[in-house]
Amino acid sequence: MLHIEFITDLGARVTVDVESADKLLEVQRQYGRLGWTSGELPSGGYQFPFDNEPDFDWALLGARKYTTPEGEELVYHKGHAYRRRELEPVDSRKMKLPAAVKYSRGAKNSDPEHVREKADGEFEYVTLAIFRGGRRQDRYALPGGAPSGAPRTAAPAQAQPAPQRPRPAAAAVAPRAAAVGVVEEETPF
Amino acid sequence: MLHIEFITDLGARVTVDVESADKLLEVQRQYGRLGWTSGELPSGGYQFPFDNEPDFDWALLGARKYTTPEGEELVYHKGHAYRRRELEPVDSRKMKLPAAVKYSRGAKNSDPEHVREKADGEFEYVTLAIFRGGRRQDRYALPGGAPSGAPRTAAPAQAQPAPQRPRPAAAAVAPRAAAVGVVEEETPF
Amino acid sequence: MLHIEFITDLGARVTVDVESADKLLEVQRQYGRLGWTSGELPSGGYQFPFDNEPDFDWALLGARKYTTPEGEELVYHKGHAYRRRELEPVDSRKMKLPAAVKYSRGAKNSDPEHVREKADGEFEYVTLAIFRGGRRQDRYALPGGAPSGAPRTAAPAQAQPAPQRPRPAAAAVAPRAAAVGVVEEETPF
Amino acid sequence: MLHIEFITDLGARVTVDVESADKLLEVQRQYGRLGWTSGELPSGGYQFPFDNEPDFDWALLGARKYTTPEGEELVYHKGHAYRRRELEPVDSRKMKLPAAVKYSRGAKNSDPEHVREKADGEFEYVTLAIFRGGRRQDRYALPGGAPSGAPRTAAPAQAQPAPQRPRPAAAAVAPRAAAVGVVEEETPF
Amino acid sequence: MLHIEFITDLGARVTVDVESADKLLEVQRQYGRLGWTSGELPSGGYQFPFDNEPDFDWALLGARKYTTPEGEELVYHKGHAYRRRELEPVDSRKMKLPAAVKYSRGAKNSDPEHVREKADGEFEYVTLAIFRGGRRQDRYALPGGAPSGAPRTAAPAQAQPAPQRPRPAAAAVAPRAAAVGVVEEETPF
Repeated sequence: MLHIEFITDLGARVTVDVESADKLLEVQRQYGRLGWTSGELPSGGYQFPFDNEPDFDWALLGARKYTTPEGEELVYHKGHAYRRRELEPVDSRKMKLPAAVKYSRGAKNSDPEHVREKADGEFEYVTLAIFRGGRRQDRYALPGGAPSGAPRTAAPAQAQPAPQRPRPAAAAVAPRAAAVGVVEEETPF
Repeated sequence: MLHIEFITDLGARVTVDVESADKLLEVQRQYGRLGWTSGELPSGGYQFPFDNEPDFDWALLGARKYTTPEGEELVYHKGHAYRRRELEPVDSRKMKLPAAVKYSRGAKNSDPEHVREKADGEFEYVTLAIFRGGRRQDRYALPGGAPSGAPRTAAPAQAQPAPQRPRPAAAAVAPRAAAVGVVEEETPF
Repeated sequence: MLHIEFITDLGARVTVDVESADKLLEVQRQYGRLGWTSGELPSGGYQFPFDNEPDFDWALLGARKYTTPEGEELVYHKGHAYRRRELEPVDSRKMKLPAAVKYSRGAKNSDPEHVREKADGEFEYVTLAIFRGGRRQDRYALPGGAPSGAPRTAAPAQAQPAPQRPRPAAAAVAPRAAAVGVVEEETPF
Repeated sequence: MLHIEFITDLGARVTVDVESADKLLEVQRQYGRLGWTSGELPSGGYQFPFDNEPDFDWALLGARKYTTPEGEELVYHKGHAYRRRELEPVDSRKMKLPAAVKYSRGAKNSDPEHVREKADGEFEYVTLAIFRGGRRQDRYALPGGAPSGAPRTAAPAQAQPAPQRPRPAAAAVAPRAAAVGVVEEETPF
Repeated sequence: MLHIEFITDLGARVTVDVESADKLLEVQRQYGRLGWTSGELPSGGYQFPFDNEPDFDWALLGARKYTTPEGEELVYHKGHAYRRRELEPVDSRKMKLPAAVKYSRGAKNSDPEHVREKADGEFEYVTLAIFRGGRRQDRYALPGGAPSGAPRTAAPAQAQPAPQRPRPAAAAVAPRAAAVGVVEEETPF
């Protein structure tokens, strides 16, 4: 028997019994669709393989996709809206980084220090998830959904650790993030 | 089987077994009426749809409405009294915000940093809950109570995330909050 | 079934199963007599109605009364000794406060910030419990003990929230607290 | 049924079911012998009666005695070595303190603030346990071991709270502690 | 019955029931192979006997060995890559230290204070594990694996506490660590 701890959409601390380990993701999906989350947002955000992005099941994180009246796709997670950003590959003398997709938002005063990331100047942001490198894992996909990108390999037992973004990459990201920050202030929620 | 963790009115840490997920809110109401709470007050307070305010069941948060001898309605939560404030809609070039109702109090030295919000000057306050936008959810209403405002739509499975108040709104709120702060000092408890 | 989390007198983290909610206080008393505590000391101390002070059952908090060879009554809680202080009612233009009884001690370097309260000058103190206002609740009384003050009303289901001490009251308390602080240094434990 | 939470010798978080309250110390001994600990080191260290020192069962704390090749007795606890120090009684105009035995070590940068104690100058130390005053409790003794000092009284139900060391005592301790600090740096582990 | 708390590879908080204490390491291996971890990285890293390094089962920590295309062996743990470093024995007038193997990485802004270790200048690093001294324990070895170094003694019931690295050793380590830091920035993940 397993037991998974959630924070419900009402902020309550609730543990749910799970019959066996292979039922765990199913339970996370079921309660994640209600906005329940388990565990904390990690520093730098959740890391997933690049090829999981098109049909990623956001319910696994207690999040969900949302399309604004203007047609923009946002991801909502615990009361925050995250924007989708495409990061181009980096290929300099100092480092090589494959392309990535990142979901992030401007930081708020109430965000804990360890999730804030520095961009240009005073601007700080928070990353919900980054999809880069690694090998697609079907278990992260929407159930019944056809992946828009074919998996390159079979899913291994353990997640291929997505690479850490070396510090110099921050410079490349900053203008983009700063620009987004301004847009966010003007959003007519 | 589920298990919900409470802090009792005596400050003890107690977990209660719950038969099934659909019984959860019922258990939260039952123990919330005794002043038991589950989870922490989130930064910026709990967020609910605007149309849930008139008949909101404060027991869900371990809180309760209280009318002072002077006839003012306060909400008590974990030993603190919160005042009701109506925030007018904002419609400027920088942002649009629908009307809201907010329950807040002046901050105390012992409040943790992440729940303090800045107002005018040195004044800081703490929000228990804000009701703005979204779609009414009947499950948050007092049991058996007739909502004073008719729901605009059926309740969705997941709470419509209440919008984040952009930072510029703080300026509009501040005079109101500061004024309340002074009143609070003089309250003859 | 309920489960209550304790810190034992040896500092261990132990959870005890409780058959039903109405057995909870009984279990708190049983283990509290061994010095076990559940939950953290709240900022400003536990708040109880004034009329509960004479026959309060300190075992509910994992504490106990102790009479020194000099005949002074102290309350011991998690290795600290707290002194009894009577606070006179306040009735000024700025605020009205009923009389109170407070159990407090001088702060130590190792006390967390949120339980330290400022008094005169550099002196800081920590409050275990304050008894002020509210309505007596029999469930807090020593079992079998005859309350020395008759209850004014029947005990309500939820604790009447004891009022928060407005900040200006600190000035009135300070001289008393500071004086006690000096005495404490000299106590021949 | 009770449940005790441990940190194992591998740093894992493991809860062990215990049939009844009177089996609790037995379970703490059993797993403590493997280096498992429950709860946090309290500020100022664990407090025990003076007469429990000679045959104290360190397994209760997940610690154990260890004799160095040089013949010195150390106590190991969670990867740290603590030295035994005898503190003479204090009998001044300001305070009276009975003799004590203390197990402490020099502080490390990674020690949390609330366990560090100031000594002379820049030197800081951490106390694992202090044995002073109080009444011997047989339940803390090594099972089957003959106490080298006869108990002065029967063991009461609750631990006699060991007295707090008033601040002025720090001065008396400092030279001793500082001297030990230097020795520690030179220890050929 | 025992219960072990994990953080899953998706960051969820999940407890797994374990039949008996002798099955615990088996369960840690089983879920550790999926990248699940239990408990926090201790200050200074996990400490193991030197002779356990060649065939250490990293799954016990939720980590795993990984060989880069360049043939370097790294250990991945919770999204971070750690490099293997050999520390020579220290034999000075001030201290004696046996040889060690250490797995560490450069610190990131988001690392908590208590796991950061100072090296030369501004450089800080984080240690996952250090293998030094002590006596080999077969229970830490890869199941079915032949240890490349024969155990010097039988495994005792409790882990021989690996010695603490005295502060002066930091100086010897620093140049090595700093050099590695530079390499890390250039790694083409």
